[in-house]
Amino acid sequence: MAGKKWVYLFNEIKQAETYVGNDWDKVRGLLGGKGANLAEMVRIGLPVPPGFIVTTEACNAYQVENKFPEGQWDQMLEALKATEKESGKKFGSVENPLLVSCRSGAKFSMPGMMDTVLNIGLNDETAKGMVKLTSNERFVYDSYRRLIQMFGSVVLGISDEAYEEPLDELKKAKGAKVDTDLTADDLKTLVETFKAITKKEIGFDFPQEPLEQLKLATEAVFKSWNGKRAIDYRRATNIPDDLGTAVCIVTMVFGNMGNDSGTGVAFTRNPSTGERVMFGDYLLNAQGEDVVAGIRNTEKIETLGRDLPEANKQFLEIVKKLELHYKDLQDVEFTIERGRLWMLQCRNGKRTAAAAIKVAVDMVEEKLITKEEAVGRVSPADVDTLLHPQFTLDSKPAAKKEGRFFTTGVNASPGAAVGQVYFDADLTEKMAKEQKQDTIMVRPFTKPDDVHGMLASKGILTSEGGAASHAAVVARQFGVPCVVAAANLVIDLDKRKMTVNDIVVNEGDWISLDGTTGEVYVGKLGLTDPKIEEQKDLLTILTWADEISATEGIRQAPKGWPTRGLQVWANADYPKDAQRARSYGAVGIGLCRTEHMFFEPTRLPIVQRMILAKSDDVQKAALDQLLPYQRADFDGLFTAMDGYPVIIRLIDPPLHEFMPDEEKLLEEVITMRVKGETKGLAEKESLLEAIRGLHESNPMMGLRGVRLSVEMPLIVEMQVRAIFEAAADCTLRGVHAKPEVMIPLTGHVNELKWIQPRLERIAKAVMDEKKVQFPYKFGTMIEIPRAAVTAAEIAGVAEFFSFGTNDLTQMTFGYSRDDAERNFLVKYVEEGILPKNPFQTLDQEGVGKLMKMAVDDGRSQRVDLEVGICGEHGGDPASIEFCHRVGNNYVSCSPFRVPVARLAAAQAAIKNRK
Amino acid sequence: MAGKKWVYLFNEIKQAETYVGNDWDKVRGLLGGKGANLAEMVRIGLPVPPGFIVTTEACNAYQVENKFPEGQWDQMLEALKATEKESGKKFGSVENPLLVSCRSGAKFSMPGMMDTVLNIGLNDETAKGMVKLTSNERFVYDSYRRLIQMFGSVVLGISDEAYEEPLDELKKAKGAKVDTDLTADDLKTLVETFKAITKKEIGFDFPQEPLEQLKLATEAVFKSWNGKRAIDYRRATNIPDDLGTAVCIVTMVFGNMGNDSGTGVAFTRNPSTGERVMFGDYLLNAQGEDVVAGIRNTEKIETLGRDLPEANKQFLEIVKKLELHYKDLQDVEFTIERGRLWMLQCRNGKRTAAAAIKVAVDMVEEKLITKEEAVGRVSPADVDTLLHPQFTLDSKPAAKKEGRFFTTGVNASPGAAVGQVYFDADLTEKMAKEQKQDTIMVRPFTKPDDVHGMLASKGILTSEGGAASHAAVVARQFGVPCVVAAANLVIDLDKRKMTVNDIVVNEGDWISLDGTTGEVYVGKLGLTDPKIEEQKDLLTILTWADEISATEGIRQAPKGWPTRGLQVWANADYPKDAQRARSYGAVGIGLCRTEHMFFEPTRLPIVQRMILAKSDDVQKAALDQLLPYQRADFDGLFTAMDGYPVIIRLIDPPLHEFMPDEEKLLEEVITMRVKGETKGLAEKESLLEAIRGLHESNPMMGLRGVRLSVEMPLIVEMQVRAIFEAAADCTLRGVHAKPEVMIPLTGHVNELKWIQPRLERIAKAVMDEKKVQFPYKFGTMIEIPRAAVTAAEIAGVAEFFSFGTNDLTQMTFGYSRDDAERNFLVKYVEEGILPKNPFQTLDQEGVGKLMKMAVDDGRSQRVDLEVGICGEHGGDPASIEFCHRVGNNYVSCSPFRVPVARLAAAQAAIKNRK
Repeated sequence: MAGKKWVYLFNEIKQAETYVGNDWDKVRGLLGGKGANLAEMVRIGLPVPPGFIVTTEACNAYQVENKFPEGQWDQMLEALKATEKESGKKFGSVENPLLVSCRSGAKFSMPGMMDTVLNIGLNDETAKGMVKLTSNERFVYDSYRRLIQMFGSVVLGISDEAYEEPLDELKKAKGAKVDTDLTADDLKTLVETFKAITKKEIGFDFPQEPLEQLKLATEAVFKSWNGKRAIDYRRATNIPDDLGTAVCIVTMVFGNMGNDSGTGVAFTRNPSTGERVMFGDYLLNAQGEDVVAGIRNTEKIETLGRDLPEANKQFLEIVKKLELHYKDLQDVEFTIERGRLWMLQCRNGKRTAAAAIKVAVDMVEEKLITKEEAVGRVSPADVDTLLHPQFTLDSKPAAKKEGRFFTTGVNASPGAAVGQVYFDADLTEKMAKEQKQDTIMVRPFTKPDDVHGMLASKGILTSEGGAASHAAVVARQFGVPCVVAAANLVIDLDKRKMTVNDIVVNEGDWISLDGTTGEVYVGKLGLTDPKIEEQKDLLTILTWADEISATEGIRQAPKGWPTRGLQVWANADYPKDAQRARSYGAVGIGLCRTEHMFFEPTRLPIVQRMILAKSDDVQKAALDQLLPYQRADFDGLFTAMDGYPVIIRLIDPPLHEFMPDEEKLLEEVITMRVKGETKGLAEKESLLEAIRGLHESNPMMGLRGVRLSVEMPLIVEMQVRAIFEAAADCTLRGVHAKPEVMIPLTGHVNELKWIQPRLERIAKAVMDEKKVQFPYKFGTMIEIPRAAVTAAEIAGVAEFFSFGTNDLTQMTFGYSRDDAERNFLVKYVEEGILPKNPFQTLDQEGVGKLMKMAVDDGRSQRVDLEVGICGEHGGDPASIEFCHRVGNNYVSCSPFRVPVARLAAAQAAIKNRK
Repeated sequence: MAGKKWVYLFNEIKQAETYVGNDWDKVRGLLGGKGANLAEMVRIGLPVPPGFIVTTEACNAYQVENKFPEGQWDQMLEALKATEKESGKKFGSVENPLLVSCRSGAKFSMPGMMDTVLNIGLNDETAKGMVKLTSNERFVYDSYRRLIQMFGSVVLGISDEAYEEPLDELKKAKGAKVDTDLTADDLKTLVETFKAITKKEIGFDFPQEPLEQLKLATEAVFKSWNGKRAIDYRRATNIPDDLGTAVCIVTMVFGNMGNDSGTGVAFTRNPSTGERVMFGDYLLNAQGEDVVAGIRNTEKIETLGRDLPEANKQFLEIVKKLELHYKDLQDVEFTIERGRLWMLQCRNGKRTAAAAIKVAVDMVEEKLITKEEAVGRVSPADVDTLLHPQFTLDSKPAAKKEGRFFTTGVNASPGAAVGQVYFDADLTEKMAKEQKQDTIMVRPFTKPDDVHGMLASKGILTSEGGAASHAAVVARQFGVPCVVAAANLVIDLDKRKMTVNDIVVNEGDWISLDGTTGEVYVGKLGLTDPKIEEQKDLLTILTWADEISATEGIRQAPKGWPTRGLQVWANADYPKDAQRARSYGAVGIGLCRTEHMFFEPTRLPIVQRMILAKSDDVQKAALDQLLPYQRADFDGLFTAMDGYPVIIRLIDPPLHEFMPDEEKLLEEVITMRVKGETKGLAEKESLLEAIRGLHESNPMMGLRGVRLSVEMPLIVEMQVRAIFEAAADCTLRGVHAKPEVMIPLTGHVNELKWIQPRLERIAKAVMDEKKVQFPYKFGTMIEIPRAAVTAAEIAGVAEFFSFGTNDLTQMTFGYSRDDAERNFLVKYVEEGILPKNPFQTLDQEGVGKLMKMAVDDGRSQRVDLEVGICGEHGGDPASIEFCHRVGNNYVSCSPFRVPVARLAAAQAAIKNRK
């Protein structure tokens, strides 16, 4: 490694490009975001204080060897000389001392996670020199005491309190309210006190030698990369551990050198709204911290021209140049030292979702960027945010101030909700429907028979579960904001209340819940409820996205399809979901779960009768009753999706899910027995017996899906009849119905060979009866690993594949979704055993490998096999990109995710073009 | 298909070979077993009555078209002419009538499953001609009435009873005890009666036209291929449905033409013992049925020379020629018609397991066959049979006669057992240990905490479960005969009895159970208990098998291994199992399930304390108590396997398996609550709460295996310490311990990266403490589909793979072993959706594809990766062959299956040589 270049001057960005290639991403990777941008500003001729960057590679080498790699320090010394030369100052000189800051700067911003030391180079001697130069003793000693304090805590590991305490005492003694009330002498005393504290804490003196200060500070920044805080942050934000941080050594400039000096921060456009108006603040005769700390009232950036017209003119030119150069909204920091403007930082500005979209659309109109770049600029999360109710900007800080923060949990389904709390589904529904209340259903966890309550809720809160628990999945499906696994939440169903620590919320009380962040507040927070049709910029972006998707990707397409383009479909069980999906841009239904129709209170007793039937006749009679319900549902779906395909999945779940809870019934029976109550006991016992007969040790791998159809073909025969009767009726009245019948849980081609001909016979019979023809398909879910492995054989029978990635993930990992998140998945992700929760983001190496195999093998058998995905992952951008890469024809997701998926599909197409 | 040859004369075997190739298997496929052997006998010059064969292809064509394929009938007429010419008789002639039989003959023998019609060609006129020729009116009319009866039932579908009734009446009227008491006139009358019955039943006359008889009889044989009986038989014996049956048309010859005539059956060697002595019976002046029917006492074949010296001499020559030709024990049928010997059938003779092995070994010594052929001749099932106790040959028929047959179930673990019935594990163990009784444990199903009772049993019987249920798996593991899912068995645990229909068996009563066949009898049946060391021929075969295995197969081998040869290892949890395994020829332990050691009554309370521990200290204390137990177990294993590798799997099952039954506890708690009993309630409630905390919706996919180790590393740290302390102790006293630590349920390489270094650190620490070195490995089960899919990554960490095909099958199919067999697997196999139960025979297309992928990918990363299988399939011959093909280094199975596996490994090597 000797001979390697570890250090780059700000004017050496070309050398960096020579080393890593002419790729901004790689340059940022080497120099860090902050360093790369400083160097880039130097390249385009902007005034940046002289300095240099120690690379991320040096940081990584340091982590291995626990010392600077060979050559680094020498190169730093050399760079320091160049910096001295350029600044005309000298590091350690008393006459004209150079002071520098030592700042961390990783590839991706990790605000506040790593350390910074300012004013390096100050010591007892140079301080005196600085006083001469600036004639501002107060400023110099304030800077000096800050150096000692920062150095002590960052480099030497001394607690901040050790310094804060004497500072507070001094202020008290002097009657000073704020730091600035202290005089130069006070601060001089404080410097001595701080030096003494430092010596006391670590046993040696605060290093007076500037080079030693620099060396130790650099090392401290390196170390902070692997501090707990930084690691936790990276875990949470999916930043890889092996990037390392760069260190920027920058000549200190001072905005507090008088009224010809100042400092400020600005965005080139409004980061909240996206409006094309510069947005920022400055202070004359002040340091950067002062702007942020809010000690003095800042000035709006618009008035800078009044105070410092020359500098302002230069600043406006620079800002314009930066936007033209970066072609994006910039966030800049600047300091004016005695009239001279210095740029201290620039970066792409963080912005709200609304601003992101507006800026992207505006910049296309301004011809700064292409439509494609605009689509690439907007993040899927932005789109998601814009489509869910949100709390008003000021509501949360206000509530926190009032002590109304309640708890935080897993952000399971985005959006904000305000409502009255109810602790069971029936009551929730009742209060919502009869009392027209806004309700929030709170449960330890939810089950399929809670769905009516969930649908009636503005929001859902559970104390158990995880991001893929029933509550979370259903909530996302229906776009209901949801927080699960809320920390410390204790629900007392008997006393109808819930508590977190000392805060009690009773049934009927109001709470506010943010499914985007996982926060829960007591009482009502202000809400805004955006509508897609009102969001012109969003619609523009999505239209561009669709144009891009339609020209890219997809190796093979079914007959009658556009030959290119990953389509976005939606999962919808009810006509109203399908309508919403269509209004959000879905061009097909990828999954209609027919059994959800079975759970409706009017139908459930019929379903139970059907299940418990001891003879075919009784069962048939129950099925005959269900048929009109299903037919009506399907009719509504086809009508809503007129002209688009609708995939209907035949009954899937194990039958016990339709039955009353076994344990509860057992408790009732035992209680009756012990009490000697006989009335109704026999019935309960026989029901219990029947439910026990349905009991399975591992229902997820049990009698469900096509297995159930083989065991009890009458149910699916009824369903297919309902589907085709509905499609026929639609066709006859001019609606273009395109039913696709999906057989779930296939593991062996013979299952399809057994059931599919039986069902196709019914399909044909109905069409004959009704004397009508329409296009239809029969296909299967691919959700059992064996199905993926034997896809070639299965494609010999199935006309389409739909990846059920929820189950496929379960089986491929051997994780039970119902248990894993609660039991070990959290720890697995925390410990880095799994990079992400595979139920949220598709596991490309494992599950994805099976999917790729299935697509390739399936198409080898049937060239125009229609392939899609209908699992939870269908709405996840990374998973959508994977689907694009392996050649899916569509992704199907919850209606609320359709706009997100449209954007993600376009981004996938762009990313994988080359 | 016109122009195709559908019919072959017996002397046209060369033409058949020209068509299908010179491959006996294919010739049999075309001509059927019976036809091919008749033709082959003609080719080697043996006397066979003239005739011809209608091919299986004609049968298959018939199944499609529902009529003879074009050309078949014309070819049959031509062949009939050739037959007439050769026999010098004429079909339908009154003067010298040719009579023929029409017999089914499929590729594989399906005894009694398909139809035969004899004496075709007889009618009112030819009967008269026959009387003239034979001067035996009684014989002719008996033949004629048999033809009408057979034709009526087989061809015309008239019930047998329709004919039997008048026959019985006639016998009663004539005072005849048996058929042969009837006179010629009686039989003449009977012919008329039978003709009248036939007409009455079907509305037309029995066809007098011989050609019509022949045509209809041939068609009837074709039809019988798809009769329910035949289909059921094929299902049960795994004969494919598309083979079809051939039809043999053979000139009738008669052994009842006087005392120079006779008929007999013979085996060229004793089929019971394998001794090299001809074994058979004959009767003079008799027909084939008479020999079988046992109406007259048959003569031993040895005395044939006394009665018919010329024919006997010819017969002895023929038999010798046949054995030399076929090089196997032959089963022949012959008839002597007026001094002339005719061979009617020859085939490889069915034999007992003992005979199969003796014949194979003898024939090598006789230089008839090679060692390899001998190994190929013995079936794995033969070996299995010889190693389990068996009922004496006469005991079952005797018991059946006495009405002591009880029930039949799934033959879950082979061998015979006689014992007294007990209905729970504790009592079973107690009676076995304290009372020294032979016990049979009977339960609805078994669970891990029943294992002590199962181990103490001679046999196990359950009313529920399937071939892969807990009872079945454990029983096979320990070689305990076991019948599960016994039909109609009702167990009343309260009244301590079980019933099948009216038969009651009380606790303590004796029953006899045959795990090889699934039969259960009341009372004691006679037993033999074979020992491997006494079975010289078996040992000879196995030695040859090992020689063959050691020279074939295996592409890559771990360091220090023989470079070729699939090895046989055993699964053993206890030292005594390991000793048995070694005595049976195992050269390694492929799976020691450490948790079985936890279930022992003395240890279980400690285990429960460990699980419920609320602090690390409490848990550590419990683990410290367990360590010496485990160390002692491992010491015993290493000692037993001195010099051979021992793979020890770390704790695998979910913790709730170690806890008391949740439902039972719930009942107790509710009862106490309702009754207001408070004493001990709180403890029970808290235990219930703890067990509920361990509850999982799908425990099979839950917190177990390596997931548990990540969650609670202390347990496996204790286990690894115990393993290495034991290995160190062994090494120090001169035993060569070769421990291999196996991590279960790995799905992601990061799980290994997390746990393995922690464990290796302990291993090294122990070796340092004990100052000793020995070889060891760390590796993993491959039992999660994702592990197979990402095997390359996993092999970067794991030093060996062991396929846990039970779990891999579960996850790949998405079948819960605990439920599937009960719920749908039986129907799946019945309906042909699955060819076999994938828990018994490896699913090569699905699970096998993942295994092959894992072996290839794993070895691509680690060339000398040790690969084996330790699932149930390790003892299944078809699965063993698959393991050979994909390049496993060993298979590991239950100790009792080791000899079977040794044979199967050799057979796999032979079969896959080319």
